[in-house]
Amino acid sequence: MRIALLGCGTVGGGVLRICRERVPELEVRRILTLPGELDDPLVTHDVDDIISDPSIECVVEAMGGIEPAHGFLVRALEAGKSVVTANKAVVAAHFAEFMGLAEKHDVAFKIEATSGGGVPWIAGIEKARRVDDVTELSGILNGTSNYLIDSMERSGKGFDEALSRAQALGYAEADPSADIDGIDVKNKTIISATVAFGSLCRRDIPCLGIRHLTKPILDALEARGWSVRLLARARQDSGRYAACVEPVVLSRASEEAHVPTNFNLATLVGQTVGELKFFGQGAGALPTGNAIVQDLLDVAAGEKPRYATEEMLEWDPALLGAAYLFATNAAAPEGAHLLASTDECGVEKALYVVLGLDPSHASALFEELAALDPTTFAASFSAEAAASLETLLSLDR
Amino acid sequence: MRIALLGCGTVGGGVLRICRERVPELEVRRILTLPGELDDPLVTHDVDDIISDPSIECVVEAMGGIEPAHGFLVRALEAGKSVVTANKAVVAAHFAEFMGLAEKHDVAFKIEATSGGGVPWIAGIEKARRVDDVTELSGILNGTSNYLIDSMERSGKGFDEALSRAQALGYAEADPSADIDGIDVKNKTIISATVAFGSLCRRDIPCLGIRHLTKPILDALEARGWSVRLLARARQDSGRYAACVEPVVLSRASEEAHVPTNFNLATLVGQTVGELKFFGQGAGALPTGNAIVQDLLDVAAGEKPRYATEEMLEWDPALLGAAYLFATNAAAPEGAHLLASTDECGVEKALYVVLGLDPSHASALFEELAALDPTTFAASFSAEAAASLETLLSLDR
Repeated sequence: MRIALLGCGTVGGGVLRICRERVPELEVRRILTLPGELDDPLVTHDVDDIISDPSIECVVEAMGGIEPAHGFLVRALEAGKSVVTANKAVVAAHFAEFMGLAEKHDVAFKIEATSGGGVPWIAGIEKARRVDDVTELSGILNGTSNYLIDSMERSGKGFDEALSRAQALGYAEADPSADIDGIDVKNKTIISATVAFGSLCRRDIPCLGIRHLTKPILDALEARGWSVRLLARARQDSGRYAACVEPVVLSRASEEAHVPTNFNLATLVGQTVGELKFFGQGAGALPTGNAIVQDLLDVAAGEKPRYATEEMLEWDPALLGAAYLFATNAAAPEGAHLLASTDECGVEKALYVVLGLDPSHASALFEELAALDPTTFAASFSAEAAASLETLLSLDR
Repeated sequence: MRIALLGCGTVGGGVLRICRERVPELEVRRILTLPGELDDPLVTHDVDDIISDPSIECVVEAMGGIEPAHGFLVRALEAGKSVVTANKAVVAAHFAEFMGLAEKHDVAFKIEATSGGGVPWIAGIEKARRVDDVTELSGILNGTSNYLIDSMERSGKGFDEALSRAQALGYAEADPSADIDGIDVKNKTIISATVAFGSLCRRDIPCLGIRHLTKPILDALEARGWSVRLLARARQDSGRYAACVEPVVLSRASEEAHVPTNFNLATLVGQTVGELKFFGQGAGALPTGNAIVQDLLDVAAGEKPRYATEEMLEWDPALLGAAYLFATNAAAPEGAHLLASTDECGVEKALYVVLGLDPSHASALFEELAALDPTTFAASFSAEAAASLETLLSLDR
């Protein structure tokens, strides 16, 4: 199959290398780059050279960002070319439009590399759906935030020190907000939930990040047998669905609590297969390049996945109801139980637990507290971690 | 597609239920059972009713054991029917014969359910091989042995008590030797390595079990930051390969050390994708039935995998060289370092470490020690766990 690359940075470069070294049946014919970026006879700086070349059957987009990527992909699909993309931002923003065009022009639109890097996560969901309804998904889908938490837990680094180290290693951008505020995971959650539930996931899902997670908070959680990870979460039941991004307090016995450095771990639940987890490198030139090449091989074999273009299920955040942790110097939220006072050795904020919230109400409460203390941190409790809350809070129920 | 079931116990019953409730495009036409086993109009007790029925395109074998399963599958393939099987024993014993017949008659022979139950492990290996060489595999592929170790670690049960509980729950057979002596994992390792390396894996690979793992040994390991799991292991490099089954001493920070109850976790390593892990239910009617139904959908779509029928790579156990632990009351093995004496609180055997063995030499040494002390237990060290050996053993190197 003859392909063209839009963008040849880390991921595009990985695709180029894998195709040339390992998969000769994929012939790279053209590479769109900015002037001065790459010295290769296939380089062009004009996307028209690709769109108007009828010999190019499939376009690989690894530019990132919304525009001009969005416009280029629309033009490629309208020209009857299949598209394989690693760009989670543009897919989360324009999923239905891309899918509609792919159906109209009877071409493929493939997105494995948007979510989970080299982890065969989107394909795993699609395969499970051949037999089961996928009722739940969750996962560590951002390696940078996992690297930060893992560094803080293992080496005793503070957040800023861990972030500097991640930036030095190339795991985090100079502006880390997409990673630490959950925006990257939010895009991946929207994409994953759309594929998993066969219903377009809304774009404004609740989203909490780890910007104000501190070493003392982690220590206070660890003392109670817990860890924390930034997770994608989504669930469907009886025609309703919910999805969100939030730090989750987990039992230290969980698989998620032991995901090292910048790896990803994503979980789906199906009725007959039960719980399936997929672990691997969530980023990097070769793992993400591998995901794109796998998509290209499927396109070459004639595969044309058809994802949802409409919101078929009804939004109901109560499906993700949980207990929530708030670490704040603002006054205690209404109905909150005190988990740890500022007197506790090493905790610089009070830790409160509010039972029976859902992600939307938790986000609203977080905003209220953050208006008073901008360093407020919030997280939900996993069911396993919440099991010990009753004893810890000495609740009479 | 029209199919027939050979055997309708736990796994066959799961296939029947999934096909009838969820996948109407798979029509079960006949079910071979023993007399009195199942009351269903499709039941026959004569395999000829299935072999000679030209409308049946694919046969699902979930009988277990070598004969008559082997003979039935040969006849089905010779009759031009595709085969999907969950029977690891018969595939490990007759892999090349089945594959040769499937090629000759241009039909499919699919084996996802033999290894890892509902975990998409064989498919994961095959997909990775589209782009990468798979250079290593390892994994927890036997839920019963994992349940036993996990129970001993978490609840303080002794081996016999944990085994009785597993038998009461239906996780372990009355004769548990296939699970606790590693025979079940051995069959799965032979199958997985054959698929992963594109070279028929020999049948007599080294195999150590967990029959003589005790709570005091686990406690002594835990005190040093370690856990233990029964693992499949295999590796290829430069035209050579090795495979074995053995308990492995792991860092307690590893993913494997946190696999709960009877779950499976299998890992492959590819050059561009890196390390990929697959976690899920390794047994049970619906998860294993799901794996078979997934294979059936692939067969219906025309997929015909072609696995190796010859040993293309050269056997070299040195590829899996490691440090080994021996827990024994026999005299110290030659060159052994003492890790824990019988004086250590709770250890009823001395624990020795021998550096620089390979699985074949370790098995030979195990046999020597077991001749003197039949309750000898042996395990290899993972690279991560071995990293702390130098300090623990105060080695001058």
